[in-house]
Amino acid sequence: MSTDKEPAPPQEPTGAPAPEAQPDMGELTAELDELRDNWRRSLADLDNLRKRHARELQSERSDERARTSAAWLPVVDNLELALQHAGSDPSAVLEGVRAVRDLAVEVLRGLGYPRYEDTGVPFDPAQHEVVGLVDDPGAEPNTVVRVQRPGYGEGDRQLRPAAVVVNKRQE
Amino acid sequence: MSTDKEPAPPQEPTGAPAPEAQPDMGELTAELDELRDNWRRSLADLDNLRKRHARELQSERSDERARTSAAWLPVVDNLELALQHAGSDPSAVLEGVRAVRDLAVEVLRGLGYPRYEDTGVPFDPAQHEVVGLVDDPGAEPNTVVRVQRPGYGEGDRQLRPAAVVVNKRQE
Repeated sequence: MSTDKEPAPPQEPTGAPAPEAQPDMGELTAELDELRDNWRRSLADLDNLRKRHARELQSERSDERARTSAAWLPVVDNLELALQHAGSDPSAVLEGVRAVRDLAVEVLRGLGYPRYEDTGVPFDPAQHEVVGLVDDPGAEPNTVVRVQRPGYGEGDRQLRPAAVVVNKRQE
Repeated sequence: MSTDKEPAPPQEPTGAPAPEAQPDMGELTAELDELRDNWRRSLADLDNLRKRHARELQSERSDERARTSAAWLPVVDNLELALQHAGSDPSAVLEGVRAVRDLAVEVLRGLGYPRYEDTGVPFDPAQHEVVGLVDDPGAEPNTVVRVQRPGYGEGDRQLRPAAVVVNKRQE
């Protein structure tokens, strides 16, 4: 949000000719020249600002992509470590893969996309995508009875809704 | 790069008073007023542009983060699928996890960060981080004899260099 590298805006014109005294012709033309200069400088600033921001947008996109991707490298590394130990002990592989899954979920949370997979909660079209309906007298009406695929993120930072099975029984 | 939503820059001032004819006082002051208006408008445009770009940078960052993170969701999903099949057939789990690793590498490539883990290539400080040295008469001098951890991306889009063991034998 800081704009400290941008050129300071020039002062608003204040030196208007005194309205009462008849202004001198030479002063008027000098002021005209100065104003033209100021205006031209503003236009040049505008143009430079546009170009600089286009470059900034481009590099900001690229930086954010690199930051986000770098957060995933430990997931890939640990996946490979787990596979390298595959020959020796299959059950240890399973342990390792579970740890990688937990790490991946943690990476998503760290990037601002917490996982949600709650059952028993009221159906919410903003967080849930219905992939199935059941008629379950033992469950609360219109609640999530099963999560088929977890969701990540919420509100305007939602990556995807949770795919859920909902109890269609109404109250 | 498109700037089509930005206000068109106003025309450069061209209506300078004719240099030969003695300019009329009323014309001069009218032109002064017009120039002041133009300048003020340029300053306001500058200010709006700064504010708009600050917002754009913010939302561009957030969008790019979401795009990049969304690319990883299949990795997490397939990791969980592999784990769900763990009980039935341990060797199938291994198959699944290998497929997930390949998918993760493919996601990185798709984001612009291809994997590299070549051995036998000349040591390149831009792509390699030396984590070990060996003296191997059977290998070419100053080449990579083993990759301990693959690198991703290259040039100014490098996520990390490959961690390598290099043959220190000189020619």
